[in-house]
Amino acid sequence: MSLIVQKFGGSSVANAERVYNVASIITDTYKAGNQVVVVLSAQGDTTDDLIAKAKEINPSPSKREMDMLLSTGEQISVALMAMAIEKMGYPVISLNAWQVGVHTDSNYSAARIRKIDHERVQKELDKKNIVLITGFQGINRYDDVTTLGRGGSDTSAVALAAALHADLCEIYTDVDGVYTTDPRIVKNAAKLEEITFDEMLELASLGANVLHNRSVEMGKKYNVNICVRSSLTRAPGTIVKEVVNVEKMLVRGIAKDTDVARISICGIADTPGKAFRIFSLLAKKNINVDIILQSIGHDGMKDISFTTTEAHLDEALQILEANKDTIDYQSLNWTKDVAKVSIVGAGMVSNPGVAAKMFEALYEAQINIHMIGTSEIKVSVLIDAGCEDKAVRAIHDKFELA
Amino acid sequence: MSLIVQKFGGSSVANAERVYNVASIITDTYKAGNQVVVVLSAQGDTTDDLIAKAKEINPSPSKREMDMLLSTGEQISVALMAMAIEKMGYPVISLNAWQVGVHTDSNYSAARIRKIDHERVQKELDKKNIVLITGFQGINRYDDVTTLGRGGSDTSAVALAAALHADLCEIYTDVDGVYTTDPRIVKNAAKLEEITFDEMLELASLGANVLHNRSVEMGKKYNVNICVRSSLTRAPGTIVKEVVNVEKMLVRGIAKDTDVARISICGIADTPGKAFRIFSLLAKKNINVDIILQSIGHDGMKDISFTTTEAHLDEALQILEANKDTIDYQSLNWTKDVAKVSIVGAGMVSNPGVAAKMFEALYEAQINIHMIGTSEIKVSVLIDAGCEDKAVRAIHDKFELA
Repeated sequence: MSLIVQKFGGSSVANAERVYNVASIITDTYKAGNQVVVVLSAQGDTTDDLIAKAKEINPSPSKREMDMLLSTGEQISVALMAMAIEKMGYPVISLNAWQVGVHTDSNYSAARIRKIDHERVQKELDKKNIVLITGFQGINRYDDVTTLGRGGSDTSAVALAAALHADLCEIYTDVDGVYTTDPRIVKNAAKLEEITFDEMLELASLGANVLHNRSVEMGKKYNVNICVRSSLTRAPGTIVKEVVNVEKMLVRGIAKDTDVARISICGIADTPGKAFRIFSLLAKKNINVDIILQSIGHDGMKDISFTTTEAHLDEALQILEANKDTIDYQSLNWTKDVAKVSIVGAGMVSNPGVAAKMFEALYEAQINIHMIGTSEIKVSVLIDAGCEDKAVRAIHDKFELA
Repeated sequence: MSLIVQKFGGSSVANAERVYNVASIITDTYKAGNQVVVVLSAQGDTTDDLIAKAKEINPSPSKREMDMLLSTGEQISVALMAMAIEKMGYPVISLNAWQVGVHTDSNYSAARIRKIDHERVQKELDKKNIVLITGFQGINRYDDVTTLGRGGSDTSAVALAAALHADLCEIYTDVDGVYTTDPRIVKNAAKLEEITFDEMLELASLGANVLHNRSVEMGKKYNVNICVRSSLTRAPGTIVKEVVNVEKMLVRGIAKDTDVARISICGIADTPGKAFRIFSLLAKKNINVDIILQSIGHDGMKDISFTTTEAHLDEALQILEANKDTIDYQSLNWTKDVAKVSIVGAGMVSNPGVAAKMFEALYEAQINIHMIGTSEIKVSVLIDAGCEDKAVRAIHDKFELA
């Protein structure tokens, strides 16, 4: 007998038919002799509908009250799912995050899980119940409702799996696993059987919308076996774990990200401390910076370029302009017409030819590279917007990932 | 500084405009220097929509899961109301019944309040917050969500007022108080300034849909000053309290009820124990019986007639037929074509002329009386269906209640 945590997203429970589809996955797992804990998101557009209701009343409501409002969505999901499972004749109980004891900090709308109690869930499992739990939410130390922000239900599921020492955490999505790249761009993209947490982290942060970063981080931290699979096909999916056999494939996946803006700060005196000044100013305002490129100085001057998300562009520019004197630069320039393409693979670091092979693929496709960023397990390039799909295909072919 | 509990029903918060109307009542009360605790119902049709969603998935879901589902409606209401009050610039916090500590028994869908903690609410009041609380719900000793059934939010409000020792409990409805009779039937029906708990109880159970019986019972038990008033007109309303000056008006109100069925059991042996046998059989099946009339026996035989609700008619008949031999009667007859009209007033018992005056009014209007039931503070008559409005008008004129 294994303890399995399963997570289903909003589209998987959007209507009565899909609720029953999910209910059959849950009860099949239960029938096979497992203990089953299920984490659910709000149905389909429920969250968007609630946000619209709120905005009609107050365009900028407090985050506390927004969390109070939004947390109803998952409660509706678990109650309806419990009714479906009851109808199918299985013992089931739905629980709110506060009933389970999902304790978070007080950072409303983007709270982090601190601790999960296991008593109530364990008691229900001992009673042979299938246990349904509201994802995306918790309570802070004042007993007030918090939500975990984007991808929160993935995080709830992995955290519960960690707290309950589950044997497996299954994340059901509308794709049937993690692919070498987006199958919508590259027809013959291949599904990976396994991927490491680190690789998954890089892929997630590079725009592969399969698992939320925070859930992967938590999985890595507590060594939770995660499986990404489809609620529609029931195909085996992709296992995310600490160590996988990386010999056979250096590059595990290719991701693209079009939500990128580049800023260049030109004509900075080539003296120590400049980069520190710039990026500490940006960090103070929580502006995420991705690739950073510094030109080699000549004539005592240098340029610093970096990428951020389009949403952060205006604020970043304002900060830099407001601090023109302290930073001491000649000019700023920026563009949104760029895209980022990345290759990820844990074997990469010890195989120096990998980056060169990627650049070769881009050269053959006549795609110009503006910036390059590397880490131990990834290489990212910044290219003109519009070329990203062509680039993904070229790289995919070059590495023979199909 | 007074502590005032205010309750607003579902139609009062049905859309953004009405939410703001209620928010202005709440903030006006706060501005006047009062501490304000507000109990809200689910918006407009939310509860019906949720029930429809549930029935689509499972026609007979467990009551526990139904309560889990339905309790989201009030949570949405309090969060949205909090956002409106925030927008108006007042300090406010919304709380779930479980955060307040509204403890109930485990009778899902019709739970009774056992105890209400006051710590959290008191803490928020001390912080000068307007406190919004979800009506209609509580938690049982397992920390599971319960709902209180019909009229539950009225009961929540009165129970909170009792627990917090509030100076006043204002129940806002779509009428501006308690009337001598339904103003839709009698144009010149008069609003009562005051009414006793007992009178209100009789009126409520006789079909005046102003306050739910359970809330009045609770108000009487803990001596909570209740005020029934309109959220639209802001007129003073009607005060419900223990003792009022009854000298000036013997009859306080007239109510009609068309949801009545009469059953007659004819040809029963005129021996002791017959009535006991009949009504204990009915009571075992929770069939509410209202007026009971027993004919004077002659030739060793008697008849027993009683009224019940139309919903209980079939079951009552089945029980009587199944027990024909034990009860030993000759025949059963029944009708739904009847209506009940009642007059209520605490001064009635010491004024024997009151009932006679009512019968005189009905005689003058040529309305035949089939049954008569009396209590210390009411007289009810059963008449033909269709005559009830005429009867109400005739009695209203006779007692000069306008």
